[in-house]
Amino acid sequence: MKTDEKIIAFLLYPGLSLLDMVGPYSVLSNLGRGYRTVVVGEQADSIPDDFGLGITPHFSIDEMPEPDILIVPGADLATFTTMANDKLMNYIRTAGEKAEILASVCTGACILAAAGFLQGRKATTHWAYAPYLEKLGVDYVKERWVEDGKFITAAGVSAGIDMALHLAARLADVDASKAVQLYCEYDPPPPFGGPDWTMANEADISRASAVNLSERLADMKTVLANKPDLLALFNDN
Amino acid sequence: MKTDEKIIAFLLYPGLSLLDMVGPYSVLSNLGRGYRTVVVGEQADSIPDDFGLGITPHFSIDEMPEPDILIVPGADLATFTTMANDKLMNYIRTAGEKAEILASVCTGACILAAAGFLQGRKATTHWAYAPYLEKLGVDYVKERWVEDGKFITAAGVSAGIDMALHLAARLADVDASKAVQLYCEYDPPPPFGGPDWTMANEADISRASAVNLSERLADMKTVLANKPDLLALFNDN
Repeated sequence: MKTDEKIIAFLLYPGLSLLDMVGPYSVLSNLGRGYRTVVVGEQADSIPDDFGLGITPHFSIDEMPEPDILIVPGADLATFTTMANDKLMNYIRTAGEKAEILASVCTGACILAAAGFLQGRKATTHWAYAPYLEKLGVDYVKERWVEDGKFITAAGVSAGIDMALHLAARLADVDASKAVQLYCEYDPPPPFGGPDWTMANEADISRASAVNLSERLADMKTVLANKPDLLALFNDN
Repeated sequence: MKTDEKIIAFLLYPGLSLLDMVGPYSVLSNLGRGYRTVVVGEQADSIPDDFGLGITPHFSIDEMPEPDILIVPGADLATFTTMANDKLMNYIRTAGEKAEILASVCTGACILAAAGFLQGRKATTHWAYAPYLEKLGVDYVKERWVEDGKFITAAGVSAGIDMALHLAARLADVDASKAVQLYCEYDPPPPFGGPDWTMANEADISRASAVNLSERLADMKTVLANKPDLLALFNDN
């Protein structure tokens, strides 16, 4: 693709957590300054998010082989089904190798690690997936986002917004980041204060909401049956 | 539609600001507790967001005439093109009249007001659109979200996340809201602090980013040429 703009590509895959992508996409799409955001998928057809909403990417991965910046969102189950998808994993490997910046949101860090990135580096992910990231040889850090060389990883879901404001300042400048922040009116006061970290276990969040992480993870050994290196993720969990 | 669940419907329309929808959608989709989130569009075909990404709704508006809760996201230009779309406006009028809760994010409040709701009530919207909301007879309040009877309006874009956590607590309970907050890891520390409100004018945000609000609004008088009541929105601006 011939363009004077640098391309920021988000990888869309079946079952992703949509806010992981749309948070930073909304920030970076308003950046301007010679950057263009695109969403790429295995095919340029409608791809379902984690609640069955269909998203049609701007391009297929074949049409966008060398983005300047690649951002991989997270998921729950689809973290592992993506690891089992050779075409997507090969794209992450080859495009991620060439990209100036390779970033992730939420469990996207686990996907990057399964693709062979981040080993021995500092990175972060969704709190519930930290053990998986560590089993993949990554030095997990509980921060909102972590930058280690060309790798920028964000914590769970909404952390992608904060990471993207940081990335906007790195790519353009702080004024551009603050202009986009104002336009997105990112002035967060969560109505009941910060997260209640005493609930940060599967039993408590599953009891209080529709989040059923353990149940949803049960079949993942089967999904990864042909990936012996990754099956170790499910030992001792 | 026969179901034991209460339906929370988001109205998807061409050109919407995707984060307006996906923020609260991500919160409420994880709520459970007898609530189901759906996205409805004029047709159940792919509909472009403000950056040309295609979103396929779960249902057409004809398939979902009476959601229990209706949430209308915002946009910039598409705020006005939606006002000129009789089918969407009729849907908002009839479904909104019957809904237990009628909510908006960002300029969705302007759309609700153009549909005949909110007159004489307190409501909020994106800071740059407050003058339009006031011209539509609404008592604009600069808050993160405002509840007035069955109407809940959120400020710009990302404010939908905070509003949705409030709504989750109203629909279920505070524990459910906090569980979803933790799962979405909504623990925001914007990297450069809160918004810089001294940049809250079109010239400054346009200079620093790709946001070109004035330019983008120039054609809206033509779009609303057949809606004399709404043309007054563009007087003295």
